[in-house]
Amino acid sequence: MIQFSTGAGTSASAAGSEVLPQAAHMLASRLMPAGKLHIVPLGGLGEFGMNCMAIRWKDDIIVIDAGMMFPEGELLGVDIVVPALTYLIENREKVRGVLLTHGHEDHIGGIPWLISELNVPIYGTEFTLAYVEDKLEENGLLDSAELNEMLPGKRFQIGPFTIHPIQVNHSIVDAVSLAIRTPLGVIIHTGDFKIDLTPTDNKTFDLQAFAEYGKEGVLALLQDSTNVERSGYTPSERAVRPKLEEIFVHSKRRLFISCFSSSIHRIKMATEMAYQFRRKIALVGRSITESTEIAQDLGHIDLPCSAFIAPNQIRDYTPEQVLVLISGTQGEPLSALSRAAVDNHRHAKIEPGDTVVLSSRVIPGNEKAIYRVIDHLFRREAKVIYNDGSEPPVHVSGHASQEELKMMINLVRPQYFIPIHGEYRQLKRHAQIAAGMKGLVGNVIMIETGDILEFDELGARRVGQAPVGRICIDSGSNSDIVEDLVIRDRKHLSEDGFVMPILAINKLTGRLEGIPEIVMRGFAGAPDDNEFIEDARGTVRRTFEHSTKEEVADYGLIKEKIRVDLRRYINRNTQRRPLVIPVIVEI
Amino acid sequence: MIQFSTGAGTSASAAGSEVLPQAAHMLASRLMPAGKLHIVPLGGLGEFGMNCMAIRWKDDIIVIDAGMMFPEGELLGVDIVVPALTYLIENREKVRGVLLTHGHEDHIGGIPWLISELNVPIYGTEFTLAYVEDKLEENGLLDSAELNEMLPGKRFQIGPFTIHPIQVNHSIVDAVSLAIRTPLGVIIHTGDFKIDLTPTDNKTFDLQAFAEYGKEGVLALLQDSTNVERSGYTPSERAVRPKLEEIFVHSKRRLFISCFSSSIHRIKMATEMAYQFRRKIALVGRSITESTEIAQDLGHIDLPCSAFIAPNQIRDYTPEQVLVLISGTQGEPLSALSRAAVDNHRHAKIEPGDTVVLSSRVIPGNEKAIYRVIDHLFRREAKVIYNDGSEPPVHVSGHASQEELKMMINLVRPQYFIPIHGEYRQLKRHAQIAAGMKGLVGNVIMIETGDILEFDELGARRVGQAPVGRICIDSGSNSDIVEDLVIRDRKHLSEDGFVMPILAINKLTGRLEGIPEIVMRGFAGAPDDNEFIEDARGTVRRTFEHSTKEEVADYGLIKEKIRVDLRRYINRNTQRRPLVIPVIVEI
Repeated sequence: MIQFSTGAGTSASAAGSEVLPQAAHMLASRLMPAGKLHIVPLGGLGEFGMNCMAIRWKDDIIVIDAGMMFPEGELLGVDIVVPALTYLIENREKVRGVLLTHGHEDHIGGIPWLISELNVPIYGTEFTLAYVEDKLEENGLLDSAELNEMLPGKRFQIGPFTIHPIQVNHSIVDAVSLAIRTPLGVIIHTGDFKIDLTPTDNKTFDLQAFAEYGKEGVLALLQDSTNVERSGYTPSERAVRPKLEEIFVHSKRRLFISCFSSSIHRIKMATEMAYQFRRKIALVGRSITESTEIAQDLGHIDLPCSAFIAPNQIRDYTPEQVLVLISGTQGEPLSALSRAAVDNHRHAKIEPGDTVVLSSRVIPGNEKAIYRVIDHLFRREAKVIYNDGSEPPVHVSGHASQEELKMMINLVRPQYFIPIHGEYRQLKRHAQIAAGMKGLVGNVIMIETGDILEFDELGARRVGQAPVGRICIDSGSNSDIVEDLVIRDRKHLSEDGFVMPILAINKLTGRLEGIPEIVMRGFAGAPDDNEFIEDARGTVRRTFEHSTKEEVADYGLIKEKIRVDLRRYINRNTQRRPLVIPVIVEI
Repeated sequence: MIQFSTGAGTSASAAGSEVLPQAAHMLASRLMPAGKLHIVPLGGLGEFGMNCMAIRWKDDIIVIDAGMMFPEGELLGVDIVVPALTYLIENREKVRGVLLTHGHEDHIGGIPWLISELNVPIYGTEFTLAYVEDKLEENGLLDSAELNEMLPGKRFQIGPFTIHPIQVNHSIVDAVSLAIRTPLGVIIHTGDFKIDLTPTDNKTFDLQAFAEYGKEGVLALLQDSTNVERSGYTPSERAVRPKLEEIFVHSKRRLFISCFSSSIHRIKMATEMAYQFRRKIALVGRSITESTEIAQDLGHIDLPCSAFIAPNQIRDYTPEQVLVLISGTQGEPLSALSRAAVDNHRHAKIEPGDTVVLSSRVIPGNEKAIYRVIDHLFRREAKVIYNDGSEPPVHVSGHASQEELKMMINLVRPQYFIPIHGEYRQLKRHAQIAAGMKGLVGNVIMIETGDILEFDELGARRVGQAPVGRICIDSGSNSDIVEDLVIRDRKHLSEDGFVMPILAINKLTGRLEGIPEIVMRGFAGAPDDNEFIEDARGTVRRTFEHSTKEEVADYGLIKEKIRVDLRRYINRNTQRRPLVIPVIVEI
């Protein structure tokens, strides 16, 4: 924990925060119930994704969000990563529910995992719950789950906590911040947000609600750090409209638009424009179809049925009569767009002169896959429009930039400011910005995943560590947990493959039967394979024959001796380090 | 080949090029020797990196550049990728030499590979040859290699070709374009370039030379496409100076600057500023040390010896007296900066309040590694300055943006324009820009790696395909070629590991001895390992026992049967697809 504090002796703030009246006094000066309030981030602080946080007062715990992250390249063969929930499982009987701020994967992707471990009530806005329902259904957990709808502006009680969902803007609809009244004061958890003064759905950011809490006094503001490195204000979602309009006006042939499937604002804008420009809308790809259907069911998109056609009807219309909304902005190899780009999709055929729009950002790590798809689209002689920095933009962010973050701090004026959702540098930069806002922020506290932050009448401090970690899941189902050891083996195998000496040992005599076999896969670069294998066999046999009878009888020991000797032989002759796995077959 | 041509019937240019007088006429109208001129890109057109191109007139071939590329993530365990040189090897006796435009890895990294296959003379500028020498020395090829220095502005002859190296600007010093006079006319190969009107070394872009060729008439312009997606002009290298100066002025403690080791301009600027601000310069990291030493030897950096200290002397100076130039802008795990960031470097200790500057760009694919290092630097409480989009910039590009590309076309006015160095979309966008420059460009031709472009008195056309491809090399040495099959195995192993059933078969009876063994590594998710293994053994045994005597006697056949059955069992029970590798031990 780094505390940009006002007390003596602690580390001075790099951003040069002013000395403010000790916030502890402000707390102590009220009449307060005795007890400790704990804030325990279980994911997302000091890492990107899998946001999850516990808030505890005595015997009651509520959880805010339960997200996932996509694995880094080195987690070979792992599909998703979710936070370890040991802290919640150890306090199983205290957990009263999980509150969801919005429906993005990094906030709800861990829900099946959480619910299979702890079947607690889930609270979310209408749209968020619709996504969660799909997710639970896929995992066979829907029937046993308890889903409770939150309405922005409508307070409700969970144990000692009063929850107030506050309407905010984000790239997904129905996103809320949470004001949580605890016995020690109000905590505001922003969730993910931006301040869009002209949202496409006219559901405006509830400035008044935040202002009111600011007037009353807020114990702690926990604020999203995702875009803290961007100066200024994030443009309104409407900033994309001029570019889309220009595209609709100039496209003389088929038009394909790809965006994040959860970008309901963007889908709404594109479909409404298609309707206006008399293009039929075809949805291609599972995620964008499901998402659009949910948005239609819930009234976020309100167009006549006749505006839409099925993918197999695309061919019934002339090219200038069709808009194809298609999944796959991130170059996912099996997505509809990736397949269409290599002319491998039944319904989405991209022809010379067609226009393809990637209305999205590049998620770091996906550059190569995305540009590969773009290259293929160019080869199809499509006109490809992507976020290449030109103006007007074809995509805007859903996260608050620096000035909006400062706006929130101005509205809320918290005693304690705690940056959340971000890698370490983002939390730190966010902390520095807040520390520089003299007279508006009491203390700035940096915590990371696993830190237990305690509040009481004397102030706030880190009091220890909760058990945290990550769980690697192979294929979206909870039973498919991949252990660290397995991932290490995969990594090793992926770099240099393996060499496996197989020895047949006669159970009765303890002697070697025949010559040891050598099996290799993924291993390259023996100057001459046959000679190399012969020598390797010889090495193994020599090790065996130079061992005592006792050593040979201890299969663990003899395998280790063979492993060491063979590895040394391989390293010396090839400068490589394959996994060496001796096997003994007893006969 | 896509030809943005003026002839009837060919595909119309997407950029709407105007009909121009057929360039073939211009060729035919002169007195021309009979013969065919071939341009054959062997790498770098339609892919990023490993630039290599052959130019052939009858029995003479010259090669321009021989680069490498860094492998994509899916090429597991591969260190570098170089172009297959089959075309050159098949025409071994015709190859007269390789001409290097500058010393970046994507232009010279394949030289050891080329020289070990074809020991032809190498031509390069002084600085480029210094890099090549190091490379050849590492591979034990220096003694037998023939190195010839090119001087900008000084023409020389190779067979039927007159070579004129023309001074240009780039992020590395001593970069040249090549004007090659062939029997059919002048070809200009730009190499990598930018037009820096105020270069740090005052070696200005030779506008006059290009202008003169433009006046005389140029057959073909082959131009770098790297930055074709950027509008405007690339800023001068001097644009970095204000930011660096600001950093020097404000740093009260130790200062670390990391840049690409070949960015001699940047190193020159940083070291001169250190001298001016009375900081001693320590070089930490192999690549930046070697590079700086070469630059000093060749006079590109000219500071007194006393300006530099050895890494182990850093501790002898107070923090404000030291500048550490350190390798590792791309988050390479073993680089000096990565190690210093986790406090694991003997001499480069980063302490709270120190400043660390990453004066570089993020090469796509390296985002996560770089931000990991930045996060660690933040944890060390260093002030970290990186290219986050703020102004003034801490890095500028070395490649020409759109207006500079157009400037070159204005200078040269080629009959044929051929975009080089880029992925397909970049070549295409470049072609579109050129096609839009009416009256300045005759024809625009797009070719990719492997296309043979033929010129004669009737014009230019693609006449076929040269054998091309990529060679994966494991550890920088030429003997370490990794076959595709090995990479496929590694990929397979990396995703789901392997399951290996081992059967001991009695040679005499043809019967199974004991129960089959099952060895697994990197394989996860059997619901219950013991039960799973027992069942897998049973499956293998059943397959064996249900086979005829003839099948069992054919080890290839019985192994395949076991593989198929066991794979089916595994897929059904785990939804995974490990590599299944049956092994038979004969006893």
